Amino acid sequence: MNKLLAEFIGTFTLVLFGCGAAVIAGADIGLTGISFAFGLALIGMAYGIGPVSGCHINPAVSLGAVAAGRMEIGVAVGYIIAQVAGAIVASLVLLTIASGKADYSVAENGLGQNGWGAGYLGEYTMMAAFLFEVVATFLFVVVILGATGAGAPSAMAGLAIGLTLVVIHLVGINITGVSVNPARSFGPALFAGATALSQVWLFIIAPIIGGVLAGIVFRSGVLDSET
Amino acid sequence: MNKLLAEFIGTFTLVLFGCGAAVIAGADIGLTGISFAFGLALIGMAYGIGPVSGCHINPAVSLGAVAAGRMEIGVAVGYIIAQVAGAIVASLVLLTIASGKADYSVAENGLGQNGWGAGYLGEYTMMAAFLFEVVATFLFVVVILGATGAGAPSAMAGLAIGLTLVVIHLVGINITGVSVNPARSFGPALFAGATALSQVWLFIIAPIIGGVLAGIVFRSGVLDSET
Amino acid sequence: MNKLLAEFIGTFTLVLFGCGAAVIAGADIGLTGISFAFGLALIGMAYGIGPVSGCHINPAVSLGAVAAGRMEIGVAVGYIIAQVAGAIVASLVLLTIASGKADYSVAENGLGQNGWGAGYLGEYTMMAAFLFEVVATFLFVVVILGATGAGAPSAMAGLAIGLTLVVIHLVGINITGVSVNPARSFGPALFAGATALSQVWLFIIAPIIGGVLAGIVFRSGVLDSET
Amino acid sequence: MNKLLAEFIGTFTLVLFGCGAAVIAGADIGLTGISFAFGLALIGMAYGIGPVSGCHINPAVSLGAVAAGRMEIGVAVGYIIAQVAGAIVASLVLLTIASGKADYSVAENGLGQNGWGAGYLGEYTMMAAFLFEVVATFLFVVVILGATGAGAPSAMAGLAIGLTLVVIHLVGINITGVSVNPARSFGPALFAGATALSQVWLFIIAPIIGGVLAGIVFRSGVLDSET
Repeated sequence: MNKLLAEFIGTFTLVLFGCGAAVIAGADIGLTGISFAFGLALIGMAYGIGPVSGCHINPAVSLGAVAAGRMEIGVAVGYIIAQVAGAIVASLVLLTIASGKADYSVAENGLGQNGWGAGYLGEYTMMAAFLFEVVATFLFVVVILGATGAGAPSAMAGLAIGLTLVVIHLVGINITGVSVNPARSFGPALFAGATALSQVWLFIIAPIIGGVLAGIVFRSGVLDSET
Repeated sequence: MNKLLAEFIGTFTLVLFGCGAAVIAGADIGLTGISFAFGLALIGMAYGIGPVSGCHINPAVSLGAVAAGRMEIGVAVGYIIAQVAGAIVASLVLLTIASGKADYSVAENGLGQNGWGAGYLGEYTMMAAFLFEVVATFLFVVVILGATGAGAPSAMAGLAIGLTLVVIHLVGINITGVSVNPARSFGPALFAGATALSQVWLFIIAPIIGGVLAGIVFRSGVLDSET
Repeated sequence: MNKLLAEFIGTFTLVLFGCGAAVIAGADIGLTGISFAFGLALIGMAYGIGPVSGCHINPAVSLGAVAAGRMEIGVAVGYIIAQVAGAIVASLVLLTIASGKADYSVAENGLGQNGWGAGYLGEYTMMAAFLFEVVATFLFVVVILGATGAGAPSAMAGLAIGLTLVVIHLVGINITGVSVNPARSFGPALFAGATALSQVWLFIIAPIIGGVLAGIVFRSGVLDSET
Repeated sequence: MNKLLAEFIGTFTLVLFGCGAAVIAGADIGLTGISFAFGLALIGMAYGIGPVSGCHINPAVSLGAVAAGRMEIGVAVGYIIAQVAGAIVASLVLLTIASGKADYSVAENGLGQNGWGAGYLGEYTMMAAFLFEVVATFLFVVVILGATGAGAPSAMAGLAIGLTLVVIHLVGINITGVSVNPARSFGPALFAGATALSQVWLFIIAPIIGGVLAGIVFRSGVLDSET
């Protein structure tokens, strides 16, 4: 139960601070500032609640861990429910805070939701969005499984993982806003209008494909640190 | 006594560098630069004076530690006095340095004070300001208590805590300028004019509520790293 | 074989995220964002695949390690082939994703290729480009060999090395786009047009000179940590 | 002898990358980018050559270490000569590289020299410049002596110290360009014209006062980590 509360708080923080930076400060801090917000929120939680639950705070990570043989699927289901719940509550809190500014409206300013195509940031195609999310999540989960595996200095894992999330955002905000995390996408999509909700399937499927692929690679042993 | 001197120096540094970045360089470094200034000042002190006092440099952290059962209230009172003194002296030094520029005036350029409402940055409502400060301080102190607790790599705590302060600023400068620290708010408010002083109550109460709530959560054991 | 796959994935990530940040987000994140993208990609991989292969992901680093007497030349050849292959495939994937934006063309927007002279960023001379690449790679490999050598805290090496790559980019993007890595230069040059390909020799030779010089310095023992 | 070579290389790197970022990329990366350049250069060297010499690369740090009773004055003199030599050679290399751009002139674009008053950045008074340099160097050396002292996790010292140098630059570039390091100031001043040379005394005296004061505080034991 402690683990589920930890995952709830961790995902809550990632969404509140990551999407919050985009919604409340995006015009001032730019894509660089938003990128650091997502990654540093993850770093804070990796050390803050990591000792309790491992700080997955991302269904693609939990399913990648299952694919790698490091987690039971039954446990992962609990984690994922807690993650999605945390993301939904964070979106509500963010909506409440953002509405404290007179000229904010979720319809116009959004809630940090992911997307693609006409009207969304760089207006990339769905195929580019899909490819980016699969590849980025694959590499993200490679870092997670490698940095927390045998031979790596475990104290540094949270830092390395969070900084990887920064660089993924530096590259990809223009493409999809960057998900690599179905929970992070689902929360804001619930409140951000019909387009976000109609596109959220991609941000569930693509990250899971990428994460599970990384898990399979690690389970195969081809990235084991054998000499 | 060494601990109190350490807390004085630490809070002095946080306010001089954090508020100093806003006052002296804000127009050049933007909200991203200011955010890093606050967080990196904390990181420097976490390793510089952390071995002496634990580097709370924040009354909400000391009271959160009391609520968590990790500190005696009598010791916390001494810490808080040293913290507030450090913040006041830092504000004076900053005022002296800033006044070395011909067109600086505290009335127009401020001293990095917190606030909300008409005329203050994003002009958020008091309710949004209060909610943000409570939630952000709660999450900040969760990271502090978790990262310095059992099962976490203690060497990384200062880094994780400081980077969390960066992301809190990335999100919240537009809302309140970000306090999460009554001492940091009190120092500049003393010299920054009537509005700042009339609003400083919120930056005393809200961070303390958030910090104490986090302490209570940790004391309850629901975030213990038991398997 | 695991080591070669690790080097392939690592160099793939460095090029996809580093050059990707430049191509996809450069106009938004500026030189500072691009600099962090390259360095943070390296940090992620240092902990993600470092335990497997040491995370050279750079022929100049592998040859520097040979010069320092830390690696067999035969092993280095395998590493370099894997690194170049990773960089080429990453360039193809980046080209595919970037082409998902209607107004992208490799001829006009490039693929993050290195260069110098008329029409390339700061329009520096070839001599300045050459000098910068030799000196920067020398210092980069000094950090790598020092931070992974006796007396240094090995857990921190990946972080220190990646942050050094950030600062090298902060200084040098205007000069050459920053190579210090023949594989990183070769991949994009293959697809970025005749100028990039005709200039790629400098980004093969200069970094290798710098890296090997650093290796020789370390082999000589004049930077050993003897008291 | 190895220690002196290490100090030479370290100070060379700090000046080449720090001042180089200002001269070559300042207009693109802004004060935030320049601030990170100085700090990250120091971090790279802290792990790259720190195991050899301790990576002072700053006369104010070496003299602070003497004042703290951690270094012999005779050894410090050798360190300081190596540091100043490294800074001078770095300034020459930077001048050579920068001159590879057609419209660069040291008279107009400078060499990253420090200064104050009319025509220098924020045009702060000499008193503000002096006060800032003393206070900032004092706090910088407090972090250095604290983070490398008893009770602190020594592996993290280089990171904490470098990030402190980042925040000092975020605050103070507008005031003095930030010295806190006589060698860093002396190198560029030699080549940057009469004004820089006539003002360099402040950047020798003020940082030494700040560094020695911090050393005295530590020698007194009032910042020892005794319970």
